[in-house]
Amino acid sequence: DSSLKVFSLNSNQELAKEIANHIGIELGKCSVTTFSDGEVQINIEESVRGCDVYVVQSTSEPVNQHMMELLIMIDALKRASASSINIVMPYYGYARQDRKARAREPITAKLVADLLQTAGASRVITLDLHAPQIQGFFDIPVDQLVGVPILADYFLKKELDDIVVVSPDHGGVTRARHMADRLKAPIAIIDKRRPKPNVAEVMNIVGNIEGKTAILIDDIIDTAGTITLAANALIENGATEVYACCTHPVLSGPAIERIDNSKIKELIVTNSIALKEEKKMDKLSQLSVAPLISEAIVRVHELQSVSILFD
Amino acid sequence: DSSLKVFSLNSNQELAKEIANHIGIELGKCSVTTFSDGEVQINIEESVRGCDVYVVQSTSEPVNQHMMELLIMIDALKRASASSINIVMPYYGYARQDRKARAREPITAKLVADLLQTAGASRVITLDLHAPQIQGFFDIPVDQLVGVPILADYFLKKELDDIVVVSPDHGGVTRARHMADRLKAPIAIIDKRRPKPNVAEVMNIVGNIEGKTAILIDDIIDTAGTITLAANALIENGATEVYACCTHPVLSGPAIERIDNSKIKELIVTNSIALKEEKKMDKLSQLSVAPLISEAIVRVHELQSVSILFD
Ligand SMILES: Nc1ncnc2c1ncn2[C@@H]1O[C@H](COP(=O)(O)O)[C@@H](O)[C@H]1O
Ligand SMILES: Nc1ncnc2c1ncn2[C@@H]1O[C@H](COP(=O)(O)O)[C@@H](O)[C@H]1O
Repeated sequence: DSSLKVFSLNSNQELAKEIANHIGIELGKCSVTTFSDGEVQINIEESVRGCDVYVVQSTSEPVNQHMMELLIMIDALKRASASSINIVMPYYGYARQDRKARAREPITAKLVADLLQTAGASRVITLDLHAPQIQGFFDIPVDQLVGVPILADYFLKKELDDIVVVSPDHGGVTRARHMADRLKAPIAIIDKRRPKPNVAEVMNIVGNIEGKTAILIDDIIDTAGTITLAANALIENGATEVYACCTHPVLSGPAIERIDNSKIKELIVTNSIALKEEKKMDKLSQLSVAPLISEAIVRVHELQSVSILFD
Repeated sequence: DSSLKVFSLNSNQELAKEIANHIGIELGKCSVTTFSDGEVQINIEESVRGCDVYVVQSTSEPVNQHMMELLIMIDALKRASASSINIVMPYYGYARQDRKARAREPITAKLVADLLQTAGASRVITLDLHAPQIQGFFDIPVDQLVGVPILADYFLKKELDDIVVVSPDHGGVTRARHMADRLKAPIAIIDKRRPKPNVAEVMNIVGNIEGKTAILIDDIIDTAGTITLAANALIENGATEVYACCTHPVLSGPAIERIDNSKIKELIVTNSIALKEEKKMDKLSQLSVAPLISEAIVRVHELQSVSILFD
């Protein structure tokens, strides 16, 4: 029976420590720094020969740095005779470039899959892929964990009355349905329409939200344009208060300012992406995915089914 | 006969323009920017179907950004049905991680080769690889151009008297020999030795440098520690003046300050790496590799031998 080791790169060191704690092991020793010219320098400081290695790294901002750290770490582990190299990637960067929306676009989410496999990855454990089809970009096993239960549990503990779960766009309805099932609540959908070209979009709300506590759910909140416009539209249309939640708090550019100035009462996210201090608003609660991920790691390592963690 | 297009990414736009000028074509239209969260966004703005495409990109600092730009561009070109995707990489980043110097190190120079091929590169045109063995990391053709003739021509025009070409370490002797042949000059070698563990290195000079104009040559000048120590040792040992030259001006960290404060009279480099304004010292002359690279591109495109450009 080969031994399990967990290594952390630079994107999510806190989460990695929590995961190792949950499993009841120490994090593997390695140093991940840069040379003077910015090239990534990795030294693995303990033997991994014959081990099942789990590498925790989200390809969050700075995405290209984190991606290269990950690829170089995989290369080093492969050459150091690790028995399997399992990538724990709570946030899969470049997931939104998952199709050619226009001529001559790259499909970077597929490129990333190819790069990880070329470097030597044996398996990927990830969380709420922007498009579940990304699993099919790989020829190695991909376990996609789901953040909805963690977010739902938080709201269940709040014991809110008269809830409606709202999807901010058509693409997120399945996720909203899943959340609504857990909260035993109805759903609504924000149906953005552009009545004519060059005319501002109209925020039409499909479903009954009047007098209700709305919970907006998305997979990624990036610049927070969609979610804050949706929140304000919900209040204007009679919702009493609006919570927002997502798995992946990208929160780039104007996101923090927009959320602060919006009608969102509270924003609930996970720690799939580590947040810098300046992004930790009063309105923000961050829930840990460490218990979920550590259970997945142990199950994978012990050759048990992981599907029990999929919804 | 398929048509030739040259595209530039963000590392070397000036050089790419010069190359296109030399060939007598316009640069291909594409936009290479980042989304708000730092993910690279590439739009190729003209058809490349059936074209032989040459992409100019050095993987210089920020190396991980430039690397991902390049990989994503290759992916986009492949999906846009380019007939061949030729990577013009004047500076090959991560070339110094070309072997396992210690246990459990990555071999990132090989990883980079694998990543480029996985993305879809058909050929690589590069300049003065840190180790020529890197050519063997690829299963596609690699043309390695040589910077010495460009540097040597500069010194020939200066008509300096009583020259000696000096290699700053053992690894660079072949390059110094090549330069010395062009300048019809003798060579010398800086032979660093550590007499005992934990005792400072001694700079021993092998060869006659007294009363001579020394020309130090290296492939990369990074933090400039080696080259400035060598220059000062040459002056202390009787050289009348010291020039230094290299192909790739990485010039990271303390490099500029060290060179400014050293006995180096003039530093001659190529534009394989574009230099930010703050790195352009008075002492520095930058020579263009555009004529060399454009000739290589035309020869490759017309299926002529490139070997004439190799020394
Ligand atoms: N990092 C990114 N930031 C913002 N937009 C992106 C990013 N990556 C891809 N996109 C765009 O987002 C759209 C896909 O998002 P979606 O429709 O939600 O799947 C496409 O039009 C992409 O061009
Ligand atoms: N980007 C870098 N900056 C400084 N040193 C490096 C870099 N990449 C690799 N090295 C080290 O440089 C040495 C190889 O350089 P060389 O002996 O000149 O081939 C190895 O010890 C590497 O660990």
